Amino acid sequence: MKSKVMVLESFNEPLVLREIEIPALDEGQILVKLQAAGVCGSDVHIRSGEDPRISLPVILGHEGVGTIADMKGGKRTVDGYELKPGDCIIWNRGITCGRCYFCQVIKEPSLCADRLVYGINVSCSEKPYLNGCYAEYIILRANTDIFKIKDGIDPEVLVSASCSGATMAHGFDMLTKSLTGQTVVVQGAGPLGIYAVVFAHSLGASCIIVIEGSTQRLELSKELGATHTLNLQKTSPDERKSTVMDATSGRGADLVVEAAGVHGVAQEGIRLLRKGATYLSAGYAQPAGMEEIDFYRDVVNKNITIQGVWVSDTRHVKQAVDLVAGNPELFAKLLTHRFSLEQADEALTVMKEKKAVKAVLTF
Amino acid sequence: MKSKVMVLESFNEPLVLREIEIPALDEGQILVKLQAAGVCGSDVHIRSGEDPRISLPVILGHEGVGTIADMKGGKRTVDGYELKPGDCIIWNRGITCGRCYFCQVIKEPSLCADRLVYGINVSCSEKPYLNGCYAEYIILRANTDIFKIKDGIDPEVLVSASCSGATMAHGFDMLTKSLTGQTVVVQGAGPLGIYAVVFAHSLGASCIIVIEGSTQRLELSKELGATHTLNLQKTSPDERKSTVMDATSGRGADLVVEAAGVHGVAQEGIRLLRKGATYLSAGYAQPAGMEEIDFYRDVVNKNITIQGVWVSDTRHVKQAVDLVAGNPELFAKLLTHRFSLEQADEALTVMKEKKAVKAVLTF
Amino acid sequence: MKSKVMVLESFNEPLVLREIEIPALDEGQILVKLQAAGVCGSDVHIRSGEDPRISLPVILGHEGVGTIADMKGGKRTVDGYELKPGDCIIWNRGITCGRCYFCQVIKEPSLCADRLVYGINVSCSEKPYLNGCYAEYIILRANTDIFKIKDGIDPEVLVSASCSGATMAHGFDMLTKSLTGQTVVVQGAGPLGIYAVVFAHSLGASCIIVIEGSTQRLELSKELGATHTLNLQKTSPDERKSTVMDATSGRGADLVVEAAGVHGVAQEGIRLLRKGATYLSAGYAQPAGMEEIDFYRDVVNKNITIQGVWVSDTRHVKQAVDLVAGNPELFAKLLTHRFSLEQADEALTVMKEKKAVKAVLTF
Amino acid sequence: MKSKVMVLESFNEPLVLREIEIPALDEGQILVKLQAAGVCGSDVHIRSGEDPRISLPVILGHEGVGTIADMKGGKRTVDGYELKPGDCIIWNRGITCGRCYFCQVIKEPSLCADRLVYGINVSCSEKPYLNGCYAEYIILRANTDIFKIKDGIDPEVLVSASCSGATMAHGFDMLTKSLTGQTVVVQGAGPLGIYAVVFAHSLGASCIIVIEGSTQRLELSKELGATHTLNLQKTSPDERKSTVMDATSGRGADLVVEAAGVHGVAQEGIRLLRKGATYLSAGYAQPAGMEEIDFYRDVVNKNITIQGVWVSDTRHVKQAVDLVAGNPELFAKLLTHRFSLEQADEALTVMKEKKAVKAVLTF
Repeated sequence: MKSKVMVLESFNEPLVLREIEIPALDEGQILVKLQAAGVCGSDVHIRSGEDPRISLPVILGHEGVGTIADMKGGKRTVDGYELKPGDCIIWNRGITCGRCYFCQVIKEPSLCADRLVYGINVSCSEKPYLNGCYAEYIILRANTDIFKIKDGIDPEVLVSASCSGATMAHGFDMLTKSLTGQTVVVQGAGPLGIYAVVFAHSLGASCIIVIEGSTQRLELSKELGATHTLNLQKTSPDERKSTVMDATSGRGADLVVEAAGVHGVAQEGIRLLRKGATYLSAGYAQPAGMEEIDFYRDVVNKNITIQGVWVSDTRHVKQAVDLVAGNPELFAKLLTHRFSLEQADEALTVMKEKKAVKAVLTF
Repeated sequence: MKSKVMVLESFNEPLVLREIEIPALDEGQILVKLQAAGVCGSDVHIRSGEDPRISLPVILGHEGVGTIADMKGGKRTVDGYELKPGDCIIWNRGITCGRCYFCQVIKEPSLCADRLVYGINVSCSEKPYLNGCYAEYIILRANTDIFKIKDGIDPEVLVSASCSGATMAHGFDMLTKSLTGQTVVVQGAGPLGIYAVVFAHSLGASCIIVIEGSTQRLELSKELGATHTLNLQKTSPDERKSTVMDATSGRGADLVVEAAGVHGVAQEGIRLLRKGATYLSAGYAQPAGMEEIDFYRDVVNKNITIQGVWVSDTRHVKQAVDLVAGNPELFAKLLTHRFSLEQADEALTVMKEKKAVKAVLTF
Repeated sequence: MKSKVMVLESFNEPLVLREIEIPALDEGQILVKLQAAGVCGSDVHIRSGEDPRISLPVILGHEGVGTIADMKGGKRTVDGYELKPGDCIIWNRGITCGRCYFCQVIKEPSLCADRLVYGINVSCSEKPYLNGCYAEYIILRANTDIFKIKDGIDPEVLVSASCSGATMAHGFDMLTKSLTGQTVVVQGAGPLGIYAVVFAHSLGASCIIVIEGSTQRLELSKELGATHTLNLQKTSPDERKSTVMDATSGRGADLVVEAAGVHGVAQEGIRLLRKGATYLSAGYAQPAGMEEIDFYRDVVNKNITIQGVWVSDTRHVKQAVDLVAGNPELFAKLLTHRFSLEQADEALTVMKEKKAVKAVLTF
Repeated sequence: MKSKVMVLESFNEPLVLREIEIPALDEGQILVKLQAAGVCGSDVHIRSGEDPRISLPVILGHEGVGTIADMKGGKRTVDGYELKPGDCIIWNRGITCGRCYFCQVIKEPSLCADRLVYGINVSCSEKPYLNGCYAEYIILRANTDIFKIKDGIDPEVLVSASCSGATMAHGFDMLTKSLTGQTVVVQGAGPLGIYAVVFAHSLGASCIIVIEGSTQRLELSKELGATHTLNLQKTSPDERKSTVMDATSGRGADLVVEAAGVHGVAQEGIRLLRKGATYLSAGYAQPAGMEEIDFYRDVVNKNITIQGVWVSDTRHVKQAVDLVAGNPELFAKLLTHRFSLEQADEALTVMKEKKAVKAVLTF
């Protein structure tokens, strides 16, 4: 049996449709028939060669939901459920060594130096070949962390939980103070920013201010819980700061979440904080130059915390899946574009041009 | 000008209606015309002499919302707003010294040995006499922490935020782990338990199991976010444990909140926890005998955290006010009985007999 | 080649000296020649059948330090060092699945249901047979977490770091507040309690009060950092409470560490706390009956945290190894008795009769 | 009775010796005869007009230890001790409102907008005039938080605990992870950096690397606990990074403490961190230009925490006093220069030229 796959063979070239013979499974491996594959903003950067982790050729796609077509040996979910063919599942896109300083002492497996990520740093020339989600089938390795999906949850809506959702869950999980009644600013309203809006809302924030250049995304933010929206094209930094100050008795925001990752965003965002507040920076997933930070005025004198957020681990995938499962109708709105597997390049272009908020490949 | 007040002059006797001449205000004092006074479960215990803090005679009532009738000198809210006559306000029922080891080093002012609580440990024979909320007027001392209430919030609905709401906010504020997607059991569905349900829900818990003996309260819990209800009269401890285990893949609850305060509750609740989970005990506001705890089996071997929760401070009042302000329609359901000031005894009886979930005096 | 081993074949019977043929190593396994094996208090309970985890026959000994005699395939330490024959090592005595809810979501691998512990729950009838430290050789499985020991550290002094040291590290690691200048009470001064004294001291506590029945252990506590000692035989509970109150301006201890595990200890210890303080219970490693706790008076009204501490994980082994490596001359004092492998029964008896503080088998 | 005082009347001019009539005390005020006044690096910046908080004329000196000469009314220490004339005391140099959002909701009184600091933002033209420590006498206001000093502690050694010690205590108090066995880099070895070295050591760090340009200060660091010293004049940034990497198995430091506050320090320091580590920035007490930070590479991709540290509160003063009291012989070494009150200008010059590590005025 063969699986169609969409392969990135050269940077800045269209993906190529290939057929790969599905190999016999090794002990513990699971063959998954994909139901939905998320088209992530990172995939756009990967195609253009900006991500240093890639070794070509690679089947793109690190966000997937699918049903078990076959499995070799027993396998339990993280929750202890014994999986069987036909089960619909989602999984942690990263696999970590489980034994190193970061996995065992720091307990942040997302920092493991040997982290393998489906669809990113494992080529399709490496066994078992079906290593990405832009494909009819993917083979999950024995040490993949898997969650069973409850009936009634739409795979297309859920699929982003495994990447942008989990990354934002990681960010909110590092916060140590309650958000009840607080003011949260979110910079950027792509999928990452949208998850920030819903997490902030679901954790009790009463005022959520979104800064973003796309009218479509600002509208969407409002539907998902934003109380104020600020159009980056139509407001000056001073106007945006004034809005934040007005909303907070002149103090500044309790939390600013950076989900944009472009030059200058951190500089602006840090200045929107009240004294003692936290800046959660999650958007810089690829190089964007230097931010100029006045440590005296904006960090030390205000007792500020700046927290970088890098990818996610299994704990965070669970949190994001739970968030989507609790708010499916909200996250359905995030899903603006659907494509077939063969249209993956078109999907990447729509994401690159920011016409879509979230695009998925459906099967 | 005089203020009608309802005074507890002897334990186990009816409150007495008195009129007290309103004294001239000292610098910083604020005369408040009450709009709503909450009738707290503690007031029932106070009337019967079970609370060791009381010195008679006392104007009962530590939960209040009202409008400023008069003030001597300027006063800002915690948020920095300059108060003026006519403003509708709520306040921290406790006043703390601000200078002791608990106020300054531990930063838990609710543990201050000199904590003064309106309506509880300050007699109406002490200046400025109007020291409780079962009254037309109360005089707030200069060092009271005050919040202005936004227009459109019903004082009767909000009033419980200053006591049971704030106490439960205190409990949830001490948690250090995210509740997203977690299972929370709440023991008892009086006002304290109902706040626990709404806090758990608003902080992302996806499964909320309420244990309670009153059908009315169980119904109410469901309307406010409970996903499962267990009638204490109709289930055995083993059945309740089974329900919790079934809802958690056999692991047990991530968090159990004790809001009942009767003998045997802690013993049962601790056994419902999964390994590594937390027991938040907030309901034991008066003596209830000894709980028998198997430290090996139920605490050490399971790496359990047990956290006692005693009253609240200004931070928690703000959190509770924000919770109610964000969910007014939910908390309106909590309010089952309204009485006039003169009917305060009747209100206490309705609370004692658990006919009411929450009763308030209205003006 | 054969390895001498001391096997528990029947409860309450002497260990039996056997010789086991050393099997060929599987991929990733490491053959370790033991330099020191710790005789743990738990081993006494295991011999008498009190520990429910045991399946006979078992080579006792879960604390070990040794040199690599042979290895199959490459293996790195947790720190990333590539191990080679001759290296002196210590390891996490427990091996966990790495994939379950506790390993991945809660990130407390010590709670993993499949935790395998050398010398405890893996019989010597199970491959690769050499599964305990009361032996000339032990075979470490591929997924064991290993640390290389720096030159100059005495294996006999270090060996307890892998069990009682790591367990106490786990307890202190869960504390969220600084100990600088604080008062810590330690109940029990066996190895677990002694580690508590040194951790408290090394984390900045300025007053450390030890309660213990053995004069020898009290003396030792003083040498390791205790500022006050209270002999359990010569003081009443009231006298002990008075001492704690006198040392804390009448407030009570900031932290009480339970390292005794006998009936009544928790009841007494919790009452020594100041308001808002923490009780760390680590000593109840086997059943000890019920503790009677007044939740109103001693937990809720005082806003107390009770934290159970169950075993440890790799993070904690590192912390304990670091503590011993930083204070080798202190921990050398802990080591009161040395025995040969063949004298293991005698060592257990000395531990049972509390003649020893710490006994080790030397080679 | 009069008090000699040293007054800053014009920026960049010598302090002027004046005599001020000691006024009658108001209720709660305490007249303190100074035993030691610390000459802080900030005083140098204040004299030259770089600190925006100053209103002239001002008696400099915010660090003081002294004995009670007179008091009006009763006053307790933070620990509850009833003060009396003759007691030797130290106090929190800042007084906060106790009622605002930062004091009550955030519980970080050091962020209070109305924070009054003796010797800094309260002029000697304001009652009760004796508002700084470069003086024979200071008058402490009623709401000052005071600690009694135990016998045998040298006031000159202790005095820095109230400023640089407390600020560094604040920094370490915000850390949420154990330092046991960790590697800490300290940038700068003035008083702030020296406190960082001793805090790191006392909290269990096993490797402490100090970067500093003065040989004298590097030597001192070694005596107080540094395990490695790097001379800023004799090493390149790459060499310094190599040293840190070599000391940490190639991972980078677990914690970097910035105690230098000059341009470029943050840029360098952040790059010395391992993934998931913390940068504690405490040295930027006055403007020092912009730091250029690569958010992708150095913050987000490495999951870094940057924590600004601004001044301190009463909790931190207690922690610093406890640290000095536990290590008096170490902190005595910090004290390199002593001056009389009249020599205060000379003391400032010695501090400015970094000839002194710590200078004090003695009486």
